[in-house]
Amino acid sequence: MTAPDRDLELTAACAEHGFDLSAPMQIGGSYTPLTRDGRTLYLSGQIPRIGDHVAVSGVVGAEVSLERAKRAAGIAMLRALTILRQELGSLERLKGVLRLTVFVHCTPDFTQHSEVADGASDLLWRVLGSAGAHTRTSVGVLQLPKNAAVELDLIAVEAEA
Amino acid sequence: MTAPDRDLELTAACAEHGFDLSAPMQIGGSYTPLTRDGRTLYLSGQIPRIGDHVAVSGVVGAEVSLERAKRAAGIAMLRALTILRQELGSLERLKGVLRLTVFVHCTPDFTQHSEVADGASDLLWRVLGSAGAHTRTSVGVLQLPKNAAVELDLIAVEAEA
Amino acid sequence: MTAPDRDLELTAACAEHGFDLSAPMQIGGSYTPLTRDGRTLYLSGQIPRIGDHVAVSGVVGAEVSLERAKRAAGIAMLRALTILRQELGSLERLKGVLRLTVFVHCTPDFTQHSEVADGASDLLWRVLGSAGAHTRTSVGVLQLPKNAAVELDLIAVEAEA
Repeated sequence: MTAPDRDLELTAACAEHGFDLSAPMQIGGSYTPLTRDGRTLYLSGQIPRIGDHVAVSGVVGAEVSLERAKRAAGIAMLRALTILRQELGSLERLKGVLRLTVFVHCTPDFTQHSEVADGASDLLWRVLGSAGAHTRTSVGVLQLPKNAAVELDLIAVEAEA
Repeated sequence: MTAPDRDLELTAACAEHGFDLSAPMQIGGSYTPLTRDGRTLYLSGQIPRIGDHVAVSGVVGAEVSLERAKRAAGIAMLRALTILRQELGSLERLKGVLRLTVFVHCTPDFTQHSEVADGASDLLWRVLGSAGAHTRTSVGVLQLPKNAAVELDLIAVEAEA
Repeated sequence: MTAPDRDLELTAACAEHGFDLSAPMQIGGSYTPLTRDGRTLYLSGQIPRIGDHVAVSGVVGAEVSLERAKRAAGIAMLRALTILRQELGSLERLKGVLRLTVFVHCTPDFTQHSEVADGASDLLWRVLGSAGAHTRTSVGVLQLPKNAAVELDLIAVEAEA
Protein backbone atom coordinates (compact mmCIF):
# COMPACT_ATOMS: atom_id res chain seq x y z
CA MET A 1 0.00 0.00 0.00
CA THR A 2 1.38 3.41 -0.92
CA ALA A 3 1.26 6.55 1.17
CA PRO A 4 -1.60 8.96 0.42
CA ASP A 5 -1.00 11.48 -2.37
CA ARG A 6 -0.53 14.54 -0.16
CA ASP A 7 2.09 12.85 1.97
CA LEU A 8 3.95 11.64 -1.14
CA GLU A 9 3.86 15.18 -2.50
CA LEU A 10 5.21 16.56 0.79
CA THR A 11 8.03 14.02 0.74
CA ALA A 12 8.89 14.93 -2.85
CA ALA A 13 8.86 18.68 -2.12
CA CYS A 14 11.04 18.20 0.97
CA ALA A 15 13.58 16.24 -1.05
CA GLU A 16 13.71 19.02 -3.67
CA HIS A 17 14.31 21.62 -0.95
CA GLY A 18 16.97 19.54 0.81
CA PHE A 19 14.73 19.29 3.87
CA ASP A 20 14.99 16.00 5.73
CA LEU A 21 11.54 15.04 6.99
CA SER A 22 12.89 12.50 9.44
CA ALA A 23 15.28 14.86 11.27
CA PRO A 24 14.07 16.14 14.65
CA MET A 25 12.91 19.77 14.39
CA GLN A 26 14.53 22.15 16.84
CA ILE A 27 12.49 24.67 18.75
CA GLY A 28 14.28 27.87 19.76
CA GLY A 29 12.51 28.79 23.01
CA SER A 30 10.04 27.79 25.70
CA TYR A 31 7.07 27.01 23.49
CA THR A 32 5.57 24.17 21.45
CA PRO A 33 5.23 23.66 17.67
CA LEU A 34 1.45 23.16 17.69
CA THR A 35 -1.61 23.74 19.84
CA ARG A 36 -5.14 22.55 19.23
CA ASP A 37 -8.59 23.97 20.02
CA GLY A 38 -11.03 21.32 18.86
CA ARG A 39 -10.18 20.84 15.21
CA THR A 40 -8.43 24.23 14.91
CA LEU A 41 -4.62 23.96 14.86
CA TYR A 42 -2.19 26.80 15.61
CA LEU A 43 1.44 26.54 14.52
CA SER A 44 4.46 28.38 15.88
CA GLY A 45 6.45 30.70 13.63
CA GLN A 46 8.69 28.76 11.25
CA ILE A 47 11.95 30.02 9.80
CA PRO A 48 13.76 28.25 6.94
CA ARG A 49 15.76 26.05 9.26
CA ILE A 50 17.10 22.71 8.09
CA GLY A 51 18.39 20.81 11.11
CA ASP A 52 20.57 23.21 13.12
CA HIS A 53 21.15 25.54 10.22
CA VAL A 54 19.13 28.53 8.95
CA ALA A 55 19.19 27.80 5.22
CA VAL A 56 18.40 31.35 4.07
CA SER A 57 19.44 34.26 6.30
CA GLY A 58 19.98 37.95 5.69
CA VAL A 59 18.09 40.84 4.17
CA VAL A 60 15.76 40.26 1.21
CA GLY A 61 16.38 42.90 -1.44
CA ALA A 62 20.05 43.10 -0.43
CA GLU A 63 22.09 39.90 0.00
CA VAL A 64 19.02 37.66 -0.48
CA SER A 65 17.40 37.64 -3.93
CA LEU A 66 13.67 37.32 -4.58
CA GLU A 67 14.23 33.75 -5.79
CA ARG A 68 16.09 32.73 -2.63
CA ALA A 69 13.49 34.46 -0.48
CA LYS A 70 10.72 32.45 -2.17
CA ARG A 71 12.73 29.32 -1.51
CA ALA A 72 13.07 30.36 2.15
CA ALA A 73 9.30 30.74 2.38
CA GLY A 74 8.94 27.30 0.84
CA ILE A 75 11.26 25.66 3.36
CA ALA A 76 9.42 27.30 6.25
CA MET A 77 6.12 26.02 4.83
CA LEU A 78 7.55 22.49 4.51
CA ARG A 79 8.38 22.65 8.22
CA ALA A 80 4.82 23.70 8.97
CA LEU A 81 3.36 20.91 6.82
CA THR A 82 5.67 18.39 8.48
CA ILE A 83 4.43 19.47 11.92
CA LEU A 84 0.83 19.14 10.72
CA ARG A 85 1.55 15.69 9.29
CA GLN A 86 3.09 14.58 12.58
CA GLU A 87 0.01 15.80 14.48
CA LEU A 88 -2.57 14.35 12.12
CA GLY A 89 -0.76 11.18 11.04
CA SER A 90 -1.35 12.13 7.41
CA LEU A 91 -2.02 15.37 5.56
CA GLU A 92 -5.11 13.63 4.17
CA ARG A 93 -6.59 14.51 7.59
CA LEU A 94 -6.07 18.26 6.96
CA LYS A 95 -9.18 20.15 5.91
CA GLY A 96 -7.23 23.27 5.01
CA VAL A 97 -5.21 26.29 6.08
CA LEU A 98 -7.32 29.18 7.34
CA ARG A 99 -4.65 31.84 7.67
CA LEU A 100 -1.02 32.26 6.70
CA THR A 101 1.11 35.18 7.88
CA VAL A 102 4.47 35.78 6.20
CA PHE A 103 7.09 38.12 7.67
CA VAL A 104 9.82 39.13 5.23
CA HIS A 105 13.12 40.48 6.57
CA CYS A 106 13.81 43.10 3.90
CA THR A 107 15.31 46.41 2.87
CA PRO A 108 13.26 49.61 3.20
CA ASP A 109 12.84 49.62 -0.61
CA PHE A 110 11.70 46.03 -1.09
CA THR A 111 7.99 45.82 -1.96
CA GLN A 112 7.57 42.28 -3.37
CA HIS A 113 6.49 40.65 -0.11
CA SER A 114 3.55 39.06 -1.84
CA GLU A 115 5.83 37.41 -4.41
CA VAL A 116 8.01 36.04 -1.58
CA ALA A 117 4.94 34.66 0.18
CA ASP A 118 3.91 32.90 -3.03
CA GLY A 119 6.85 30.58 -2.35
CA ALA A 120 4.88 29.28 0.64
CA SER A 121 1.41 29.51 -0.89
CA ASP A 122 2.38 27.64 -4.04
CA LEU A 123 3.51 24.68 -1.93
CA LEU A 124 0.16 24.62 -0.16
CA TRP A 125 -1.63 24.31 -3.51
CA ARG A 126 0.86 21.71 -4.71
CA VAL A 127 0.51 19.48 -1.65
CA LEU A 128 -3.15 20.05 -0.80
CA GLY A 129 -4.63 20.53 -4.27
CA SER A 130 -8.00 22.25 -4.19
CA ALA A 131 -7.84 22.29 -0.36
CA GLY A 132 -4.87 24.69 -0.65
CA ALA A 133 -7.03 27.84 -0.50
CA HIS A 134 -5.98 30.10 2.39
CA THR A 135 -6.00 33.73 3.48
CA ARG A 136 -2.68 35.49 3.70
CA THR A 137 -1.01 38.56 5.12
CA SER A 138 2.57 39.46 4.18
CA VAL A 139 4.59 42.29 5.70
CA GLY A 140 8.17 43.56 5.62
CA VAL A 141 9.98 43.58 8.95
CA LEU A 142 13.30 44.91 10.22
CA GLN A 143 14.66 41.63 11.58
CA LEU A 144 13.74 38.06 12.38
CA PRO A 145 15.01 35.48 14.88
CA LYS A 146 18.51 34.21 13.97
CA ASN A 147 18.69 36.70 11.09
CA ALA A 148 16.31 34.49 9.07
CA ALA A 149 15.16 35.92 5.74
CA VAL A 150 11.53 34.82 6.18
CA GLU A 151 9.26 33.65 9.00
CA LEU A 152 5.71 32.38 8.71
CA ASP A 153 2.98 31.02 10.92
CA LEU A 154 -0.43 29.58 10.21
CA ILE A 155 -3.78 28.43 11.53
CA ALA A 156 -5.14 25.21 10.04
CA VAL A 157 -8.15 23.00 10.53
CA GLU A 158 -8.44 19.24 10.76
CA ALA A 159 -10.92 17.37 8.61
CA GLU A 160 -14.05 16.12 10.37
CA ALA A 161 -13.85 12.51 11.50
CA MET B 1 -37.70 47.72 0.77
CA THR B 2 -34.47 49.47 1.75
CA ALA B 3 -31.12 47.83 2.40
CA PRO B 4 -30.34 47.07 6.04
CA ASP B 5 -28.76 49.88 8.03
CA ARG B 6 -25.24 48.43 8.18
CA ASP B 7 -25.08 47.92 4.42
CA LEU B 8 -26.33 51.46 3.82
CA GLU B 9 -23.69 52.78 6.18
CA LEU B 10 -20.99 50.77 4.38
CA THR B 11 -22.14 52.16 1.03
CA ALA B 12 -22.07 55.70 2.41
CA ALA B 13 -18.60 55.28 3.91
CA CYS B 14 -17.26 53.78 0.67
CA ALA B 15 -18.59 56.73 -1.31
CA GLU B 16 -16.90 59.16 1.09
CA HIS B 17 -13.58 57.33 0.69
CA GLY B 18 -13.84 57.13 -3.11
CA PHE B 19 -14.01 53.34 -2.88
CA ASP B 20 -16.25 51.70 -5.47
CA LEU B 21 -18.06 48.77 -3.86
CA SER B 22 -19.05 47.28 -7.19
CA ALA B 23 -15.54 47.09 -8.67
CA PRO B 24 -13.88 43.66 -8.61
CA MET B 25 -11.25 43.45 -5.89
CA GLN B 26 -7.82 42.36 -7.06
CA ILE B 27 -5.81 39.82 -5.14
CA GLY B 28 -2.03 40.08 -5.44
CA GLY B 29 -0.95 36.45 -5.06
CA SER B 30 -1.97 32.81 -4.85
CA TYR B 31 -4.44 33.08 -1.99
CA THR B 32 -8.10 33.87 -1.31
CA PRO B 33 -9.79 36.87 0.35
CA LEU B 34 -11.68 34.84 2.99
CA THR B 35 -11.70 31.44 4.65
CA ARG B 36 -14.28 30.03 7.01
CA ASP B 37 -14.10 27.63 9.97
CA GLY B 38 -17.70 27.14 11.07
CA ARG B 39 -18.89 30.67 11.79
CA THR B 40 -15.34 32.05 12.22
CA LEU B 41 -14.14 34.08 9.22
CA TYR B 42 -10.49 34.88 8.41
CA LEU B 43 -9.65 37.71 6.00
CA SER B 44 -6.48 38.24 3.99
CA GLY B 45 -4.36 41.33 4.61
CA GLN B 46 -5.90 44.43 3.01
CA ILE B 47 -3.98 47.44 1.76
CA PRO B 48 -5.68 50.73 0.79
CA ARG B 49 -6.15 49.66 -2.81
CA ILE B 50 -8.92 51.18 -4.90
CA GLY B 51 -9.20 49.18 -8.13
CA ASP B 52 -5.67 48.76 -9.50
CA HIS B 53 -4.28 51.67 -7.54
CA VAL B 54 -2.80 51.86 -4.03
CA ALA B 55 -4.53 55.00 -2.79
CA VAL B 56 -2.05 55.77 0.01
CA SER B 57 1.54 54.58 -0.36
CA GLY B 58 4.80 55.60 1.28
CA VAL B 59 6.15 56.07 4.77
CA VAL B 60 3.89 57.30 7.56
CA GLY B 61 5.64 60.04 9.52
CA ALA B 62 7.54 61.15 6.37
CA GLU B 63 5.63 61.66 3.10
CA VAL B 64 2.36 60.31 4.57
CA SER B 65 0.71 62.40 7.31
CA LEU B 66 -1.21 60.95 10.26
CA GLU B 67 -4.47 62.09 8.67
CA ARG B 68 -3.72 60.33 5.37
CA ALA B 69 -2.56 57.23 7.23
CA LYS B 70 -5.87 57.09 9.11
CA ARG B 71 -7.65 57.41 5.80
CA ALA B 72 -5.52 54.54 4.43
CA ALA B 73 -6.56 52.38 7.38
CA GLY B 74 -10.17 53.32 6.67
CA ILE B 75 -9.98 52.29 3.00
CA ALA B 76 -8.37 48.95 3.94
CA MET B 77 -11.19 48.36 6.45
CA LEU B 78 -13.82 49.18 3.81
CA ARG B 79 -12.27 46.48 1.63
CA ALA B 80 -12.49 44.02 4.51
CA LEU B 81 -16.12 44.92 5.21
CA THR B 82 -16.95 44.58 1.53
CA ILE B 83 -15.47 41.08 1.47
CA LEU B 84 -17.48 40.18 4.57
CA ARG B 85 -20.66 41.58 3.00
CA GLN B 86 -20.06 39.51 -0.15
CA GLU B 87 -19.61 36.36 1.94
CA LEU B 88 -22.58 36.93 4.24
CA GLY B 89 -24.97 38.63 1.82
CA SER B 90 -25.45 41.44 4.31
CA LEU B 91 -23.41 42.85 7.19
CA GLU B 92 -26.52 42.31 9.30
CA ARG B 93 -25.30 38.68 9.37
CA LEU B 94 -22.02 39.70 11.03
CA LYS B 95 -21.86 39.06 14.77
CA GLY B 96 -18.65 41.02 15.18
CA VAL B 97 -14.92 41.35 14.64
CA LEU B 98 -12.82 39.34 17.08
CA ARG B 99 -9.37 40.62 16.19
CA LEU B 100 -7.91 43.38 14.06
CA THR B 101 -4.18 43.65 13.33
CA VAL B 102 -2.88 46.89 11.81
CA PHE B 103 0.61 47.15 10.29
CA VAL B 104 1.81 50.72 9.78
CA HIS B 105 4.66 51.39 7.32
CA CYS B 106 6.41 54.16 9.23
CA THR B 107 9.57 56.02 10.12
CA PRO B 108 11.69 54.83 13.07
CA ASP B 109 10.41 57.84 15.06
CA PHE B 110 6.69 57.45 14.42
CA THR B 111 4.84 56.24 17.51
CA GLN B 112 1.16 57.00 16.77
CA HIS B 113 0.29 53.56 15.36
CA SER B 114 -2.74 53.41 17.59
CA GLU B 115 -4.07 56.69 16.18
CA VAL B 116 -3.60 55.37 12.63
CA ALA B 117 -5.45 52.18 13.53
CA ASP B 118 -8.34 54.26 14.88
CA GLY B 119 -9.05 55.10 11.23
CA ALA B 120 -10.05 51.45 10.79
CA SER B 121 -11.61 50.92 14.22
CA ASP B 122 -13.83 54.00 13.97
CA LEU B 123 -15.36 52.64 10.76
CA LEU B 124 -16.17 49.37 12.50
CA TRP B 125 -18.11 51.26 15.16
CA ARG B 126 -19.80 53.44 12.56
CA VAL B 127 -20.96 50.53 10.42
CA LEU B 128 -21.63 47.90 13.10
CA GLY B 129 -22.80 50.10 15.97
CA SER B 130 -22.55 48.36 19.32
CA ALA B 131 -21.33 45.21 17.53
CA GLY B 132 -18.19 47.14 16.55
CA ALA B 133 -16.22 46.06 19.65
CA HIS B 134 -12.98 44.30 18.67
CA THR B 135 -9.50 43.57 19.96
CA ARG B 136 -6.61 45.22 18.20
CA THR B 137 -2.85 45.08 17.76
CA SER B 138 -0.98 47.80 15.89
CA VAL B 139 2.72 47.74 15.06
CA GLY B 140 5.18 49.76 12.97
CA VAL B 141 6.88 47.88 10.15
CA LEU B 142 9.69 48.63 7.71
CA GLN B 143 7.75 48.03 4.49
CA LEU B 144 4.50 46.66 3.12
CA PRO B 145 3.46 45.07 -0.17
CA LYS B 146 3.42 47.58 -3.04
CA ASN B 147 4.80 50.28 -0.71
CA ALA B 148 1.37 50.62 0.91
CA ALA B 149 1.19 52.91 3.94
CA VAL B 150 -1.02 50.56 5.97
CA GLU B 151 -2.07 46.91 5.90
CA LEU B 152 -4.65 45.22 8.12
CA ASP B 153 -6.22 41.82 8.56
CA LEU B 154 -9.01 40.56 10.79
CA ILE B 155 -10.89 37.60 12.20
CA ALA B 156 -14.66 37.97 12.33
CA VAL B 157 -17.61 35.83 13.35
CA GLU B 158 -20.94 35.27 11.65
CA ALA B 159 -24.18 35.69 13.58
CA GLU B 160 -25.92 32.48 14.58
CA ALA B 161 -28.67 31.39 12.19
CA MET C 1 -10.08 29.91 51.98
CA THR C 2 -7.09 30.95 49.92
CA ALA C 3 -7.06 32.05 46.29
CA PRO C 4 -6.34 29.32 43.73
CA ASP C 5 -2.69 28.62 42.99
CA ARG C 6 -2.58 30.28 39.57
CA ASP C 7 -4.07 33.51 40.84
CA LEU C 8 -1.64 33.57 43.77
CA GLU C 9 1.23 33.05 41.36
CA LEU C 10 -0.04 35.88 39.14
CA THR C 11 -0.25 38.19 42.16
CA ALA C 12 3.28 37.25 43.20
CA ALA C 13 4.69 37.79 39.70
CA CYS C 14 2.93 41.16 39.39
CA ALA C 15 4.40 42.30 42.70
CA GLU C 16 7.89 41.31 41.53
CA HIS C 17 7.44 43.29 38.30
CA GLY C 18 6.01 46.36 40.06
CA PHE C 19 2.70 45.85 38.27
CA ASP C 20 -0.35 46.79 40.33
CA LEU C 21 -3.13 44.32 39.57
CA SER C 22 -5.80 46.54 41.07
CA ALA C 23 -5.03 49.64 38.96
CA PRO C 24 -7.39 50.27 36.02
CA MET C 25 -5.75 49.32 32.73
CA GLN C 26 -5.73 52.05 30.12
CA ILE C 27 -6.63 51.32 26.52
CA GLY C 28 -5.03 53.58 23.92
CA GLY C 29 -7.69 53.60 21.17
CA SER C 30 -11.22 52.69 20.11
CA TYR C 31 -11.07 48.98 20.85
CA THR C 32 -11.59 46.53 23.72
CA PRO C 33 -9.12 44.41 25.71
CA LEU C 34 -10.83 41.07 25.02
CA THR C 35 -13.33 39.44 22.68
CA ARG C 36 -14.85 35.99 22.92
CA ASP C 37 -16.00 33.44 20.34
CA GLY C 38 -17.47 30.60 22.36
CA ARG C 39 -14.61 29.56 24.63
CA THR C 40 -11.93 31.13 22.42
CA LEU C 41 -10.58 34.43 23.78
CA TYR C 42 -8.73 37.07 21.76
CA LEU C 43 -6.64 39.73 23.54
CA SER C 44 -5.56 43.12 22.27
CA GLY C 45 -1.89 43.91 21.87
CA GLN C 46 -0.22 44.63 25.23
CA ILE C 47 2.77 46.87 25.76
CA PRO C 48 4.71 46.96 29.07
CA ARG C 49 2.54 49.70 30.49
CA ILE C 50 2.19 50.13 34.26
CA GLY C 51 -0.61 52.60 34.91
CA ASP C 52 -0.05 55.62 32.63
CA HIS C 53 3.60 54.83 32.11
CA VAL C 54 5.37 52.65 29.54
CA ALA C 55 7.84 50.86 31.81
CA VAL C 56 10.29 49.84 29.08
CA SER C 57 10.51 51.98 25.93
CA GLY C 58 13.13 52.35 23.22
CA VAL C 59 15.09 50.13 20.90
CA VAL C 60 16.14 46.64 21.98
CA GLY C 61 19.78 46.07 21.09
CA ALA C 62 20.54 49.78 21.57
CA GLU C 63 19.28 51.58 24.69
CA VAL C 64 17.30 48.55 25.89
CA SER C 65 19.29 45.47 26.93
CA LEU C 66 18.17 41.88 26.41
CA GLU C 67 17.45 41.58 30.12
CA ARG C 68 15.22 44.68 30.16
CA ALA C 69 13.50 43.52 26.98
CA LYS C 70 12.68 40.17 28.60
CA ARG C 71 11.29 42.08 31.56
CA ALA C 72 9.18 44.20 29.17
CA ALA C 73 7.77 41.02 27.63
CA GLY C 74 7.01 39.77 31.14
CA ILE C 75 5.09 42.93 32.10
CA ALA C 76 3.06 42.78 28.88
CA MET C 77 2.21 39.15 29.63
CA LEU C 78 1.14 40.05 33.18
CA ARG C 79 -1.28 42.56 31.68
CA ALA C 80 -2.65 39.86 29.39
CA LEU C 81 -3.04 37.40 32.27
CA THR C 82 -4.75 40.07 34.35
CA ILE C 83 -7.27 40.69 31.56
CA LEU C 84 -7.90 36.95 31.31
CA ARG C 85 -8.35 36.69 35.06
CA GLN C 86 -10.86 39.57 35.03
CA GLU C 87 -12.83 37.85 32.25
CA LEU C 88 -12.79 34.38 33.76
CA GLY C 89 -12.95 35.26 37.46
CA SER C 90 -9.92 33.06 38.07
CA LEU C 91 -7.06 31.77 35.95
CA GLU C 92 -8.11 28.30 37.12
CA ARG C 93 -10.80 28.68 34.43
CA LEU C 94 -8.15 29.05 31.69
CA LYS C 95 -7.53 25.93 29.62
CA GLY C 96 -4.48 27.38 27.94
CA VAL C 97 -2.92 29.83 25.50
CA LEU C 98 -3.15 28.74 21.87
CA ARG C 99 -0.98 31.38 20.25
CA LEU C 100 1.37 34.13 21.40
CA THR C 101 2.81 36.73 19.02
CA VAL C 102 5.69 38.89 20.26
CA PHE C 103 6.80 42.02 18.40
CA VAL C 104 10.24 43.30 19.43
CA HIS C 105 11.18 46.91 18.66
CA CYS C 106 14.84 46.39 17.82
CA THR C 107 17.95 47.39 15.91
CA PRO C 108 18.61 45.93 12.43
CA ASP C 109 21.33 43.74 13.97
CA PHE C 110 19.37 42.31 16.88
CA THR C 111 18.51 38.63 16.36
CA GLN C 112 17.55 37.39 19.86
CA HIS C 113 13.78 37.92 19.48
CA SER C 114 13.16 34.42 20.73
CA GLU C 115 15.11 35.10 23.92
CA VAL C 116 13.08 38.29 24.50
CA ALA C 117 9.83 36.37 23.98
CA ASP C 118 10.96 33.83 26.58
CA GLY C 119 10.33 36.59 29.13
CA ALA C 120 6.63 36.22 28.34
CA SER C 121 6.59 32.47 27.77
CA ASP C 122 8.37 31.70 31.03
CA LEU C 123 5.64 33.54 32.95
CA LEU C 124 2.98 31.43 31.24
CA TRP C 125 4.67 28.26 32.43
CA ARG C 126 5.17 29.70 35.92
CA VAL C 127 1.54 30.75 36.35
CA LEU C 128 -0.21 27.97 34.43
CA GLY C 129 2.12 25.05 35.09
CA SER C 130 1.68 22.22 32.60
CA ALA C 131 -1.15 24.23 30.94
CA GLY C 132 1.46 26.80 29.91
CA ALA C 133 2.19 25.17 26.53
CA HIS C 134 1.59 27.60 23.65
CA THR C 135 2.67 28.31 20.09
CA ARG C 136 4.70 31.42 19.47
CA THR C 137 5.88 33.74 16.73
CA SER C 138 8.42 36.48 17.45
CA VAL C 139 9.54 39.13 14.97
CA GLY C 140 11.64 42.30 15.00
CA VAL C 141 9.81 45.49 14.05
CA LEU C 142 10.82 49.08 13.36
CA GLN C 143 8.58 50.76 15.94
CA LEU C 144 5.73 50.12 18.35
CA PRO C 145 2.97 52.28 19.83
CA LYS C 146 4.32 54.84 22.31
CA ASN C 147 7.88 53.75 21.53
CA ALA C 148 7.34 50.58 23.60
CA ALA C 149 10.19 48.06 23.50
CA VAL C 150 7.89 45.03 23.17
CA GLU C 151 4.27 44.32 22.26
CA LEU C 152 2.46 40.99 22.42
CA ASP C 153 -0.99 39.59 21.79
CA LEU C 154 -2.50 36.17 22.32
CA ILE C 155 -5.38 33.81 21.72
CA ALA C 156 -6.46 31.74 24.71
CA VAL C 157 -9.17 29.20 25.46
CA GLU C 158 -11.42 28.86 28.47
CA ALA C 159 -11.75 25.54 30.28
CA GLU C 160 -14.92 23.58 29.62
CA ALA C 161 -17.63 24.09 32.24
